[in-house]
Amino acid sequence: MKRTIKAALIQQSKSADVAENRNRMVAAVKKIAETERPDLIVLQELHDSLYFCQSEDVNAFDLAIAIPSEVTERYSRLAREANAVLVTSLFERRAPGLYHNTAVVFDRDGSIAGKYRKMHIPDDPAYYEKYYFTPGDMGFKPIDTSIGRLGVMVCWDQWYPEAARVMALSGAEILIYPTAIGWESTDSAEEKERQLQAWITIQRSHAVANGIPVISVNRTGFEPDTTGMTNGITFWGHSFAAGPQGEILEMAPADKEWVKTVELDMERSENVRRWWPFLRDRRIDAYTPILKRYND
Amino acid sequence: MKRTIKAALIQQSKSADVAENRNRMVAAVKKIAETERPDLIVLQELHDSLYFCQSEDVNAFDLAIAIPSEVTERYSRLAREANAVLVTSLFERRAPGLYHNTAVVFDRDGSIAGKYRKMHIPDDPAYYEKYYFTPGDMGFKPIDTSIGRLGVMVCWDQWYPEAARVMALSGAEILIYPTAIGWESTDSAEEKERQLQAWITIQRSHAVANGIPVISVNRTGFEPDTTGMTNGITFWGHSFAAGPQGEILEMAPADKEWVKTVELDMERSENVRRWWPFLRDRRIDAYTPILKRYND
Repeated sequence: MKRTIKAALIQQSKSADVAENRNRMVAAVKKIAETERPDLIVLQELHDSLYFCQSEDVNAFDLAIAIPSEVTERYSRLAREANAVLVTSLFERRAPGLYHNTAVVFDRDGSIAGKYRKMHIPDDPAYYEKYYFTPGDMGFKPIDTSIGRLGVMVCWDQWYPEAARVMALSGAEILIYPTAIGWESTDSAEEKERQLQAWITIQRSHAVANGIPVISVNRTGFEPDTTGMTNGITFWGHSFAAGPQGEILEMAPADKEWVKTVELDMERSENVRRWWPFLRDRRIDAYTPILKRYND
Repeated sequence: MKRTIKAALIQQSKSADVAENRNRMVAAVKKIAETERPDLIVLQELHDSLYFCQSEDVNAFDLAIAIPSEVTERYSRLAREANAVLVTSLFERRAPGLYHNTAVVFDRDGSIAGKYRKMHIPDDPAYYEKYYFTPGDMGFKPIDTSIGRLGVMVCWDQWYPEAARVMALSGAEILIYPTAIGWESTDSAEEKERQLQAWITIQRSHAVANGIPVISVNRTGFEPDTTGMTNGITFWGHSFAAGPQGEILEMAPADKEWVKTVELDMERSENVRRWWPFLRDRRIDAYTPILKRYND
């Protein structure tokens, strides 16, 4: 792995026009690639469309694509042109009636380095993901790329220390979370702040526990709930990169599109793990209850 | 469990005079019990002595006590007088040449509700705990008390999400960490801040991941390294209580003794877990690598 990885985070708002979303994302990738020459570019969850999981709509399955397909071929070309590893988040049509929420990682040469199918699937009012996505069946396997071994997961996975740990124990050098999460307008300001801080805290904690950097990219902007059941989602942005002690390196605002690069000092992970040797002392003889639903 | 638990956190500095340390701690417990009538009182790690693990000194084993013994009988009386569940942290002499770092929980009636032997044992310059303490052999078992089921662990355990998870899956309603951690003077101000924030973040994350409150009580004050190998430890205080979204409810300063009570709304855990149903979606079929040292 290179000693330093320059990563770009791209936080955008989305419209109902998929072609326009793709074009704007591609333009943002090309621009940051030209100006900053990052090694790694991370996009938000389901960046090609609105967050369609706000309702259960059988027509929304039309948004899904095969992997590979024309769309992934476009992103292959984009990664090659950008000369960067590109982390995308796609609605995968695997077979008729079988869909996943899948991160596809393109290497600098345009090849598909690997994919990750979201393992933890949420289901809450305005986040009806269990309707759309079959839980991933590929496990928590890091993806090897020309710049290093990437622990790519997706959104709801970010709340699970087990997932981060399995990635780290499998050699992941960075944890990466494309995300789509936001506020409902009826929650109080205090509750909104608690939710945002919980989201930042749990992801920073994966950096701390495992001594590796974390990148999380969220969407921004308001998207209405077409069913009228909720007041829609104001995606809370705050995309960020944290170092291996959980220290925030860069963080986006809530309400603006934002593109930023950050230098990850990969040598620091080795040092931080020497200073804070958590992996040395894990009590693997006593963790068995983690494999149970509940220890009753 | 009561719907509300009033918890007291007692952060103190310590001297080489064990009797004086005990007397001052007992006085602090009695005072807060009289004035605030807490249900639960949490003390810092190894509160009866200096943090003797700064050096490997065979004479320091003289500080250890049997459980039960006169000392625990005194703390039994103290819990009964205070009418509170009392979480202590003791240097346990289990057998000749066999010692543990053990939290003993006394119930309101003075009985020993249970004990926990520190499972993860650190060993770093100025924290030579592997010399003194055999790793716990009782697992991560919460302790049932008259006010609820307590997930008591000790210090280094706080860096391990697995430990917090096993406690939560075993029904722990609060996570409690007596602690002794601090700064070495040669670290930069930025490094010290990263360390402190990492420590706060990882513990708050256990509240977030598991939807239960966390209490952490640290010591304060400077204690020299008698070997001269390091510049000693300035214990960083910052004892705190966090709610089930990781929100800070109370937090101590770094450099002062501090006693504070905090009301824990236990109904909130049920609600937070409904809003953020992480336990529902755990992929227990995919966590097996957590039981390995490394997944290579």
